Amino acid sequence: MPAPVLLTDEQRTRMHDLYRQLHEHPELSMQEHRTAALVQAELEQCGIDTFSCGGTGVVGVLRNGEGPVVAFRADIDALPIKEDTGLPFASTATGTLADGTEVPVMHGCGHDAHAAALLTAARLLAGAKDRWAGTIVFIFQPGEETGAGARAMVEDGLWEKAPKPEVVFGQHVMPGLAGTVQYVHGHPMTQADSWKVTLHGRQSHGSQPQDSIDPIVLGAHIITRIQTIVSREVDPRRSAVVTVGTFHGGLKENIIPSSAEFTLNVRAFDESVRDTVLGALRRIIKAEADASNAPEPTIEVLSSFPPNLNDRQATDDVVKALRQELGEASVIEGEPVMASEDFGHLVEPICVPSVFWFFGGHPAETLAAERIPVNHSPLFAPVMEPTLSTGARAAVAAILSKVGLER
Amino acid sequence: MPAPVLLTDEQRTRMHDLYRQLHEHPELSMQEHRTAALVQAELEQCGIDTFSCGGTGVVGVLRNGEGPVVAFRADIDALPIKEDTGLPFASTATGTLADGTEVPVMHGCGHDAHAAALLTAARLLAGAKDRWAGTIVFIFQPGEETGAGARAMVEDGLWEKAPKPEVVFGQHVMPGLAGTVQYVHGHPMTQADSWKVTLHGRQSHGSQPQDSIDPIVLGAHIITRIQTIVSREVDPRRSAVVTVGTFHGGLKENIIPSSAEFTLNVRAFDESVRDTVLGALRRIIKAEADASNAPEPTIEVLSSFPPNLNDRQATDDVVKALRQELGEASVIEGEPVMASEDFGHLVEPICVPSVFWFFGGHPAETLAAERIPVNHSPLFAPVMEPTLSTGARAAVAAILSKVGLER
Amino acid sequence: MPAPVLLTDEQRTRMHDLYRQLHEHPELSMQEHRTAALVQAELEQCGIDTFSCGGTGVVGVLRNGEGPVVAFRADIDALPIKEDTGLPFASTATGTLADGTEVPVMHGCGHDAHAAALLTAARLLAGAKDRWAGTIVFIFQPGEETGAGARAMVEDGLWEKAPKPEVVFGQHVMPGLAGTVQYVHGHPMTQADSWKVTLHGRQSHGSQPQDSIDPIVLGAHIITRIQTIVSREVDPRRSAVVTVGTFHGGLKENIIPSSAEFTLNVRAFDESVRDTVLGALRRIIKAEADASNAPEPTIEVLSSFPPNLNDRQATDDVVKALRQELGEASVIEGEPVMASEDFGHLVEPICVPSVFWFFGGHPAETLAAERIPVNHSPLFAPVMEPTLSTGARAAVAAILSKVGLER
Amino acid sequence: MPAPVLLTDEQRTRMHDLYRQLHEHPELSMQEHRTAALVQAELEQCGIDTFSCGGTGVVGVLRNGEGPVVAFRADIDALPIKEDTGLPFASTATGTLADGTEVPVMHGCGHDAHAAALLTAARLLAGAKDRWAGTIVFIFQPGEETGAGARAMVEDGLWEKAPKPEVVFGQHVMPGLAGTVQYVHGHPMTQADSWKVTLHGRQSHGSQPQDSIDPIVLGAHIITRIQTIVSREVDPRRSAVVTVGTFHGGLKENIIPSSAEFTLNVRAFDESVRDTVLGALRRIIKAEADASNAPEPTIEVLSSFPPNLNDRQATDDVVKALRQELGEASVIEGEPVMASEDFGHLVEPICVPSVFWFFGGHPAETLAAERIPVNHSPLFAPVMEPTLSTGARAAVAAILSKVGLER
Repeated sequence: MPAPVLLTDEQRTRMHDLYRQLHEHPELSMQEHRTAALVQAELEQCGIDTFSCGGTGVVGVLRNGEGPVVAFRADIDALPIKEDTGLPFASTATGTLADGTEVPVMHGCGHDAHAAALLTAARLLAGAKDRWAGTIVFIFQPGEETGAGARAMVEDGLWEKAPKPEVVFGQHVMPGLAGTVQYVHGHPMTQADSWKVTLHGRQSHGSQPQDSIDPIVLGAHIITRIQTIVSREVDPRRSAVVTVGTFHGGLKENIIPSSAEFTLNVRAFDESVRDTVLGALRRIIKAEADASNAPEPTIEVLSSFPPNLNDRQATDDVVKALRQELGEASVIEGEPVMASEDFGHLVEPICVPSVFWFFGGHPAETLAAERIPVNHSPLFAPVMEPTLSTGARAAVAAILSKVGLER
Repeated sequence: MPAPVLLTDEQRTRMHDLYRQLHEHPELSMQEHRTAALVQAELEQCGIDTFSCGGTGVVGVLRNGEGPVVAFRADIDALPIKEDTGLPFASTATGTLADGTEVPVMHGCGHDAHAAALLTAARLLAGAKDRWAGTIVFIFQPGEETGAGARAMVEDGLWEKAPKPEVVFGQHVMPGLAGTVQYVHGHPMTQADSWKVTLHGRQSHGSQPQDSIDPIVLGAHIITRIQTIVSREVDPRRSAVVTVGTFHGGLKENIIPSSAEFTLNVRAFDESVRDTVLGALRRIIKAEADASNAPEPTIEVLSSFPPNLNDRQATDDVVKALRQELGEASVIEGEPVMASEDFGHLVEPICVPSVFWFFGGHPAETLAAERIPVNHSPLFAPVMEPTLSTGARAAVAAILSKVGLER
Repeated sequence: MPAPVLLTDEQRTRMHDLYRQLHEHPELSMQEHRTAALVQAELEQCGIDTFSCGGTGVVGVLRNGEGPVVAFRADIDALPIKEDTGLPFASTATGTLADGTEVPVMHGCGHDAHAAALLTAARLLAGAKDRWAGTIVFIFQPGEETGAGARAMVEDGLWEKAPKPEVVFGQHVMPGLAGTVQYVHGHPMTQADSWKVTLHGRQSHGSQPQDSIDPIVLGAHIITRIQTIVSREVDPRRSAVVTVGTFHGGLKENIIPSSAEFTLNVRAFDESVRDTVLGALRRIIKAEADASNAPEPTIEVLSSFPPNLNDRQATDDVVKALRQELGEASVIEGEPVMASEDFGHLVEPICVPSVFWFFGGHPAETLAAERIPVNHSPLFAPVMEPTLSTGARAAVAAILSKVGLER
Repeated sequence: MPAPVLLTDEQRTRMHDLYRQLHEHPELSMQEHRTAALVQAELEQCGIDTFSCGGTGVVGVLRNGEGPVVAFRADIDALPIKEDTGLPFASTATGTLADGTEVPVMHGCGHDAHAAALLTAARLLAGAKDRWAGTIVFIFQPGEETGAGARAMVEDGLWEKAPKPEVVFGQHVMPGLAGTVQYVHGHPMTQADSWKVTLHGRQSHGSQPQDSIDPIVLGAHIITRIQTIVSREVDPRRSAVVTVGTFHGGLKENIIPSSAEFTLNVRAFDESVRDTVLGALRRIIKAEADASNAPEPTIEVLSSFPPNLNDRQATDDVVKALRQELGEASVIEGEPVMASEDFGHLVEPICVPSVFWFFGGHPAETLAAERIPVNHSPLFAPVMEPTLSTGARAAVAAILSKVGLER
């Protein structure tokens, strides 16, 4: 087991500065130009080779002789949310959505903490080359929120440009006690697929239903019927959710419209459960349209977040290292969360183990409150300490568990 | 317009005797041997040629020189009901169902009244040959209740053996003021189709729905979905009913069964509405099975009652004759009823006009009561008079409207 | 029976001019200022006393000695539709909706024909005072399309200001052979009620349905369940429609929204059927919310069109007069239509008989086409003749059937 | 850690004899008279004090000086199944159900293996009193299959008559590799609740749905609606099943019946999930009846199986002991099963930790086959060895982990 690489007060102060800069200047997915420049400058200053990848992604490669290759990923994009934290360094930034709308932007999911912690870990490891041997790949990924960034980096040749690692790590700040890490065996997060479904009916006056194919009644029956997927087609010991988040059809109460549309979101941990659910959805949507004598509905895939599976052995190794670094009591076996991530898209093409864990961002007194501002809330504001230090130390410990030199 | 043929007290007494005999000895559908013998003897005694047709059916042909041919039909079968009227001539008869069960039998639908009235009309017309010219075909049909009798007579060559009429008449006793006749233009009664539908699923333990195809959930969705046929696919100005009368599946609360079955009954006046409904049923049953990933359900036709359509002109002629015979106020335009009849099966193959009307069997004081014992009730008991006389006089008047000689 | 009052070529030409003016300058409901001025001027020119009523409504009272009082109503408002008929006098007018939107306006429902015909009838009757005696009330009603106009006139004291008639007539141009009139006994049109229903749920992330009350799933079950009202709760021989014309809820596929809303439209001929349907709707909406553990949904009444019932005797009288005027073959017993009218609101407060009929606006060759532009189509364009003459002659004949002097 | 208590060949042969006797003479729940006599004789012969409890239950108390008290439970009843294993000692026994029916009886769930293994463990421990100190309570429980037996023993004063243990153990033979044990942390099995629900409608002829309250349509909507409990009201990370195993209503396709009934079965691991599901069921059943304007349905509880929760520390202790006895590779962390047990009813009233595990009964070659005869199959036949020895050794090892003397 390698000796600890210590986070000095100076480094902690530097990390806080980075965090405040990142937090104050959030950028929308795939538009992280300022953030990328800051990341690249910081890595270069530490003597780490960098290259851009997938547009606004930045990769740092820190070589230190013979040894294993390990990769660590932090995501760097922010959200179209109007910050309401009242922090002195709160964001007043705006960004432009695909449709041209200008919107307020906020680091409402804590990616600023991910980036600040990984930059700090990079600096620490670059300054402690006597303690480890091998190569570390630091991946600063854009566009996690839209599910586009990891794929963009892979398509831009990430794994041709960077050495292929033996393991990939990632972490996410979450509601939980600041200073602690939560891990799970198996899937820490779900896959997620979103569809838009357009139902094709036939318009008629509301008094003449016999001349119509009523897309609202069709939609009602589809939504009713797809409840049976989770209730009847999935092993009760497996998790799955099908949510129809929107339904829109019709302009006037006495006109049966010619079409209606709804969007849905599917989540599951297991690939086989996901396949079962998506297959059943297609089957039911088609069959219910048949029952209405309607044309086959149009299904458009809006997004697809990949599986995220913690390797058993790699997880045990990381947990051991984290416990050594942070103390037994601070590394807790948690529950998987139903949220999703595109981290898996980075790992999938190289077929190596990965480990993804959570670190808490809330002090005990906040957790005691009834309602904690969670990720994506305009009030989401992890306390800087011990949150950031825990993130940085966890990153260093995990990386050293692979490339560290025994004393 | 022919002069009235009068119903004498003697004939009325004879009719009451016939009625009491028929009522006391009811026979199940297609087993009306005693009834057929009585009918045949009575017709023969009046000098009317008879032949058996369709098993227990009897046809009388009364020829009287050149002139139109007219047919009148009465049905003669009874029901598996235990009579509870308390009449002195109440039935204590029993019969044997197809499956061998012995059951009580009762004239619970008034076919005894139909037969007694038509036999009396036959006797009157046979005794008044100077008042009319032509041929009258008296049809005493078995098996109306099961929808089998009319078809059996036609298949046994009814219209080859009897002269083809220009018009066919029929009548039915119903709740309504005794002494009155109710007629409608258009369809007096509905068509009716009955199906048995078997749903094929896959059995599994109740705790493992993912291994099953749940036929009870499938059945629930079919029953839910077919409500849209009447609500969305039929012109609201047209009548249609789809009733699922039975649903049976499963033996144990924690076993998902391998199959389930339901029976349904469809009624409509218009042939096109019937076609719409039956087509939609097949479509929905198939599509919902698809939605469940189940094999196509098996549909078995249990029975099919034909349309029954009153010819416009023939109805007007009959109504005029009935008003002359019974008085203006006693012949009322009524509403069609949702019940069904196989009368149409007799008429359909010869494509001639037909008229079917109702005559009331209840005194005013009974009608004022909240709940009248209707057809098929164990308490159904039309008062003999003026019910039977009205039936006999209506039959005579209708027949004479076609074959009567002007004074 | 009074002698016919003849429509001369000169009057026909004048009527066509009026029609073209009205058609070219359509006005939205309750904004019929130009139309009202034209109507008023025309009536005054004929020597008929007028007064404004219900905002843009105009009433003409033509007194001619002792005799019965009879009223005839024409509606005068137009629709927010962009005309696409290509007529030389097609509308290019615009109007302003309640929300301030400027929209194109078109006489897409034929109220211009109603007004032109009734103005012509008024002129004819004012010029033929020797042929009749009594009082004729000509009602030019605004705002029929929104269901507001008849009520506005009544609330403005119509029946205090005008003499109370013994009967009220009205007519509507419809797809059908130009030159013919269609009438029905009973209800020519349906009642109609429109509601907006707001479902109150509880928002949560799509991956955490257990924290939500899902208003989209609730809406789907309500829409599914209300199909049983028409299929199970209404006598199949009665007409009823429940159409959910709109359903809207949710902004994002992975957020369960906090509310959703739908609008519905109910039609029925009979008041008791309407009561049954509206009662069942309230019951089901409430119960399904209970099933979802949701608060009681909010129901807002958008509009309510009254019953419209043709008096039996008055209808027979009108039909006789119309047949005499237009010929037997041109006055046809038709079917009731599922559309609605606020004509009933005029009649209801004075409890007198009324008769409402339809007159055709299409030549035979148009009717032979597969798709006829019906009322409310941007292509709706009745042929001027014989449509308008039939409307004017029908109005005169109906009025004279009540006030005309026998020769 | 105590020295192993060895299972000699002689004891193994004796165990096989016991097993064959038990297997050949299975008895229905709460009628295990012959089995109880055999168990009691065997325990007494080992010098263990016994008493009857809960009818056909037998308790053995083996005291051996000061020390902890530990309890081990085996269930002893069989099932109404016709054995089809072809074993030389296959059952030909019959039994009498509550309704008087005589049925074939079979040890189709392996309780014979449980009893033979525990009797053997008792003999081994009674013969090795120098290796342990304290008190062992051997519980041979009747009526597990019906959920009645554990409750009967408790109500008969089990924990007043026997010393209160510090921990209660139990085990069940299951499909799995013979020679191995599977354990889980948390709930090894589900709770289970079964209900019978009677829907009260109003009968009418199928052609007059407006006079009915249709209980089949009501049932269909309830079954459809309760799918949302699992899909929307339960945390997707928790397990729950609601199965409607039977639905029965109606006698004739054209009669809407006056009532219908269905039975359902609910399973969940967590008490809070069970409470959520049962509460939602009551709410939905009531609300859907309201939606149908029907009286509140009648709910009858058919059975209720309790939770079964493995204590964390006690499980770790048992697993350690089993690994020592059977080898690391033979003690596997498995998955919870959706089946249910009344073991929890024994433990609940004394609020002490319990551990319940599974032992495999199938050789490797059987497991490779596509379809293994599982518990409750007429073909269920665990191989005697190493199944029984594993069961006996696991029981001894678990008990000694608590009362054994360190060497």
